[in-house]
Amino acid sequence: MNKDLFTLMHPNSVAIIGASAKPGSVGNELILRATEARFTGRLVAINPKNDEINGVPCYPNIASVPFKVDTAIIAVPAAGVLQVLEECHASGCNHAVIISSGFKEVGDAGRALEQQIADFANMNDMTVVGPNCLGIINTATEYSLNACFAPLQPMRGSVGFATQSGALASGIINVLPNLRIGLSQMISLGNQCQINSIDVLRCWENDDSIKVILLYLESIPNEKEFREVASRISLKKPILVIKSGRSERGARASVSHTGSLAGDDTTVSGMLASSGVIRELDLRELFDTAQVLSKCPLPKGENLAIITNAGGPGIMATDTASDYSITIANLTDDTKQKLRSVLSPQASVANPVDVVASATAEQYSASAKILLDAPEVDMLLVIYLYITGKNDIRIMKELEELKKSHPTKPIVAMLLTTPNFNNELDAELPNCSIPTFSYIADAMHGLSRLIERKHFIEDKQSERVYNLNIDSSKTKAILDSAKRDGIKQLTTLQSLQIFANYNLPTPKFGNAQSLNDAKKIAKEIGYPVVLKMSSKTVTHKSDIGGVVTNIKTEEELAEHWNRLMDRLREANVIDTLDGIVVMQQIRGANRELVAGIVEKNGTHQMMFGLGGIFVEALHEVAFRPCPLTYLDAVSLLNSTKAKNIIGALRGNLAADPQEIILTLLRLSQLVSDFPEIKEIDANPLMINDKGELFVVDARIVL
Amino acid sequence: MNKDLFTLMHPNSVAIIGASAKPGSVGNELILRATEARFTGRLVAINPKNDEINGVPCYPNIASVPFKVDTAIIAVPAAGVLQVLEECHASGCNHAVIISSGFKEVGDAGRALEQQIADFANMNDMTVVGPNCLGIINTATEYSLNACFAPLQPMRGSVGFATQSGALASGIINVLPNLRIGLSQMISLGNQCQINSIDVLRCWENDDSIKVILLYLESIPNEKEFREVASRISLKKPILVIKSGRSERGARASVSHTGSLAGDDTTVSGMLASSGVIRELDLRELFDTAQVLSKCPLPKGENLAIITNAGGPGIMATDTASDYSITIANLTDDTKQKLRSVLSPQASVANPVDVVASATAEQYSASAKILLDAPEVDMLLVIYLYITGKNDIRIMKELEELKKSHPTKPIVAMLLTTPNFNNELDAELPNCSIPTFSYIADAMHGLSRLIERKHFIEDKQSERVYNLNIDSSKTKAILDSAKRDGIKQLTTLQSLQIFANYNLPTPKFGNAQSLNDAKKIAKEIGYPVVLKMSSKTVTHKSDIGGVVTNIKTEEELAEHWNRLMDRLREANVIDTLDGIVVMQQIRGANRELVAGIVEKNGTHQMMFGLGGIFVEALHEVAFRPCPLTYLDAVSLLNSTKAKNIIGALRGNLAADPQEIILTLLRLSQLVSDFPEIKEIDANPLMINDKGELFVVDARIVL
Repeated sequence: MNKDLFTLMHPNSVAIIGASAKPGSVGNELILRATEARFTGRLVAINPKNDEINGVPCYPNIASVPFKVDTAIIAVPAAGVLQVLEECHASGCNHAVIISSGFKEVGDAGRALEQQIADFANMNDMTVVGPNCLGIINTATEYSLNACFAPLQPMRGSVGFATQSGALASGIINVLPNLRIGLSQMISLGNQCQINSIDVLRCWENDDSIKVILLYLESIPNEKEFREVASRISLKKPILVIKSGRSERGARASVSHTGSLAGDDTTVSGMLASSGVIRELDLRELFDTAQVLSKCPLPKGENLAIITNAGGPGIMATDTASDYSITIANLTDDTKQKLRSVLSPQASVANPVDVVASATAEQYSASAKILLDAPEVDMLLVIYLYITGKNDIRIMKELEELKKSHPTKPIVAMLLTTPNFNNELDAELPNCSIPTFSYIADAMHGLSRLIERKHFIEDKQSERVYNLNIDSSKTKAILDSAKRDGIKQLTTLQSLQIFANYNLPTPKFGNAQSLNDAKKIAKEIGYPVVLKMSSKTVTHKSDIGGVVTNIKTEEELAEHWNRLMDRLREANVIDTLDGIVVMQQIRGANRELVAGIVEKNGTHQMMFGLGGIFVEALHEVAFRPCPLTYLDAVSLLNSTKAKNIIGALRGNLAADPQEIILTLLRLSQLVSDFPEIKEIDANPLMINDKGELFVVDARIVL
Repeated sequence: MNKDLFTLMHPNSVAIIGASAKPGSVGNELILRATEARFTGRLVAINPKNDEINGVPCYPNIASVPFKVDTAIIAVPAAGVLQVLEECHASGCNHAVIISSGFKEVGDAGRALEQQIADFANMNDMTVVGPNCLGIINTATEYSLNACFAPLQPMRGSVGFATQSGALASGIINVLPNLRIGLSQMISLGNQCQINSIDVLRCWENDDSIKVILLYLESIPNEKEFREVASRISLKKPILVIKSGRSERGARASVSHTGSLAGDDTTVSGMLASSGVIRELDLRELFDTAQVLSKCPLPKGENLAIITNAGGPGIMATDTASDYSITIANLTDDTKQKLRSVLSPQASVANPVDVVASATAEQYSASAKILLDAPEVDMLLVIYLYITGKNDIRIMKELEELKKSHPTKPIVAMLLTTPNFNNELDAELPNCSIPTFSYIADAMHGLSRLIERKHFIEDKQSERVYNLNIDSSKTKAILDSAKRDGIKQLTTLQSLQIFANYNLPTPKFGNAQSLNDAKKIAKEIGYPVVLKMSSKTVTHKSDIGGVVTNIKTEEELAEHWNRLMDRLREANVIDTLDGIVVMQQIRGANRELVAGIVEKNGTHQMMFGLGGIFVEALHEVAFRPCPLTYLDAVSLLNSTKAKNIIGALRGNLAADPQEIILTLLRLSQLVSDFPEIKEIDANPLMINDKGELFVVDARIVL
């Protein structure tokens, strides 16, 4: 199968099959949109009943069209779609968008019909979007293609938008002009019988007309493939995703076990983060980010200057910058001096720069120039409230000019002005490339994503590749032996030995078959020690008293060993033991983390976060799909409040974040080397008062 | 002093002093706004140079006006303001709004001038708004007063808005029509030389034209008074506040000590919460909430039904409802059956009800009526995307009708339709009382505040008053003795005794002067026990080894007692002791909370949250001003993730929240009874595995 979405989106000729003269019908709306958009190629309607529809020449069927049709837009009843597709193929048209509904979404009969269509398309190297979709749009002046029955025309721009909800596309096309976001291409994916969001990403990867990709998704076609493709493309252009259906998360993430915590949505979040995709939760934030990322360069640094003509919004902007951890630039005396020379005496030349209510457009422009020229400023937010003397459009024109001479410094504007501002701006400065917002929070959200992307690109460019230097032969032997024994959950001893083989920070330990062994090991390790039963069948050691902690002397060891043996005999589990683990007792370990891996839908998911009793109470855990890159490990470490307990804390020394990162990478390596491992718990992962890291208990499930 | 803001806002006659014929001047803008608004009373301009200005009769001074002026709007240069005020008073006009700037905001000379004005006003029972403000607006049809130089006229409505940022008022008046929020009154507070936000609250308390009060504040004039007034008024109508200058919080709240954690902003948040004030962080959320609270009744229950013509937004609405903990109603079979009878076969009658893209206005209306009639539905969100056939205005008209027959069920709408929708709605349904939003998150934010307010009103109506039954005479004796000794920080023993006197959950303890005492006490209490030095001067017991834990037997007690005495002798602190506390060792206490009180600006602030090593790392603490009401204690308990560790957790039993609430109330009572106490730490406040609560250490500072 040879899908060619690019040609489908860039046709020289388009046929609307099922076009209709009946006002209000989908077949008529499609004709209207296409003619309103002034498609630059050849447009024909297909309908046996008409000679022309709204001025578009009409043919009875695609075979009668006197030239080759590149893309067919099919809007006939579901039952007729397959035949139309066959006719298309026969006439040499191998690209189709199926608008018609009545397929998978209406039940089994529709599902079967849809499968026939997909099979036909795949077997005949056809490229098919839909069915049950709204259509496609390509605003490029060379095409000006609107083959979509949404009622309004979108603004031309550099955003590619693909959506699993067609109706949403229509709603969004309606509001985009108000948001001053222009579309390059739009694809309504519908039921995705063939072309899905991954194909769209691939198609837009090298399409320079698209600077930012927006996706509305209700499902991810194939998480592994999506990750692979998105990871590559997100390095070239930002991918913004709304993935709806988040709210099962709450219900699923209610218990502490690694497996149970990996609710579908948390792992989707981890996958998207790992792919460099920006996940937004609602449309507003999506549009905020789209405006800034499609119009602004990545800044060189992170210092924001703010100009305002009102004190209140300046204070609110400072508050919100702090919420988003955006740095307010410290202006140098030189910059302040320059500002003073252009502003009125009442102005404040600290940052935010308050040019006061009476400021002219010239004063706005002069201070914006001074700030953009200043080396200590990397980004500029211009706040304008219409108070006296309406300067909004003039200020926007000045900023647009300044942008040309300061191409590396992002400029965004926030205006509370007349309700008609957007229309005026469109009329007077139609290609304005400065993002505009009505609210500070929206501007800051957009800027924070810009900074996030700057970090992402820089981090990726300098990402380290770690050679973990692991000889896994010991692990292979242990796993082979476990498999021979038919063990699903490895014994404590086996799990610890594997951890040790992978250089994970286990406490010192040894395997004792007798009290004498235990004494010898304890002497080597040093007291206090812990005794842990290691059984091939018992998975909950504590339930039968199989763990004894804080054994301080050889006498205590002897006493506890004997008592432990009594308990194990009583519980009838002596035969199941492969030994008793004698382990170093970790002291001063009052900070508990958790790390673990669980397999979900064929992908190993790494979990990391706050551990101990707080796992379930505070729910500060996050996920990333394996194999982890170095950056995945870093971002996993920073995803939750777990990062807050790693530093020096009340007399406890800081742990080395690198040690934690390596621990996560080693665990990831372990499941890469042995994918038959289904689940790992390194829980708790303790930090002691000296800042040393220890995996105190290990569990591996095949 | 007898302030009368009500008359100032409801004048029969207004003089604009400093009115000007010069276009663009403040004095001219004021005249223009007043005439555009068609003030229904008598309007005069005061300026010696003119006979009339823009058709308004002009007099040389207020004394020449042939009738009594109720309210003077003063816009003369700062230096002339005092004289004008004197003239006003002399002519019987005792209400003035001083627009002029050049006062406190420009330095010491201006500050002195402002003080003179305030003194004159206060001595002569004048009511003065400003100086350095934008003016006032009262849109009531009986007045139609716009004495404000913001460029646009606001929409008429039921919101009262007072602001410390005049420029912000102007910006907000510009955008309110777009947000479909109407103003009843607006007061620009300026420098608040006399009238401040508390006066405004009092003025609007019984003004039925104002349904919702919006405040933008940069400072709280008097926290105690604000709390008292706001607590009373918030029971009658919602008060929404933006208090800017939040971001110092981050810097101040960096260490764990109760005092240090009480950064100004966290305590402001606590005070506002305790007053029933809704604090919003940005303008968008402020407006979301204002729209819903000014247009919707409080719901009877919390079950939300959603109608949508597009699946995607329905899913997103469900996600967002879950984010806000809003319940999606479970529709009964009866309701579903009724929905089926009016909707097309493709529609989904589960909640969200998907009426599908082809839905007519009649189908919207019919399904809205079915849902509003349904007893299982308390609130309705109607989502409309313009896809085919533009029905937005018709749907709004139907909803407006349905609202009349369902007056107790809130209805909100979210529309993604043509950019011109607001104008069309204004033209066709000018008094539309259904809140409208473009984004789901905004609609849900507003609804969540409506539910929050429902809870607040219900909780207040059923609030319990607790008699704590404390005979504080023992505490009085201890404090008297400490004062006689000149002790600032009470000894451990004294602190514990006071806690015990207030029925706080201390472990069992006694005071030992000798080993024999200690043995006797330990026997009574039962082993294991803890020894704690109690000193009049040493505040950090642990630093000199003054605490010994986990003493299991009488022999161990003797051994540890002697060693402790050696250490105390060596540290040369024996003379400072008032005894050694022998205390029950609490076992299985692995959940740590923190409670404490600190005095800030004359108010005792109660802190509560997650304790132990996590206080500073996770920063899950919140504040409420004392004295705490029962509801304050409940809301403090629920303000942080501390609530998550109180329930049953991994084999640990749940603590009784009532015990924690009583602990907070008792601590509050303690500082009410003895306001000389400056600081209290009940830290840690432990919960053991049986769910019992213990204050393990106590510290009281005078």
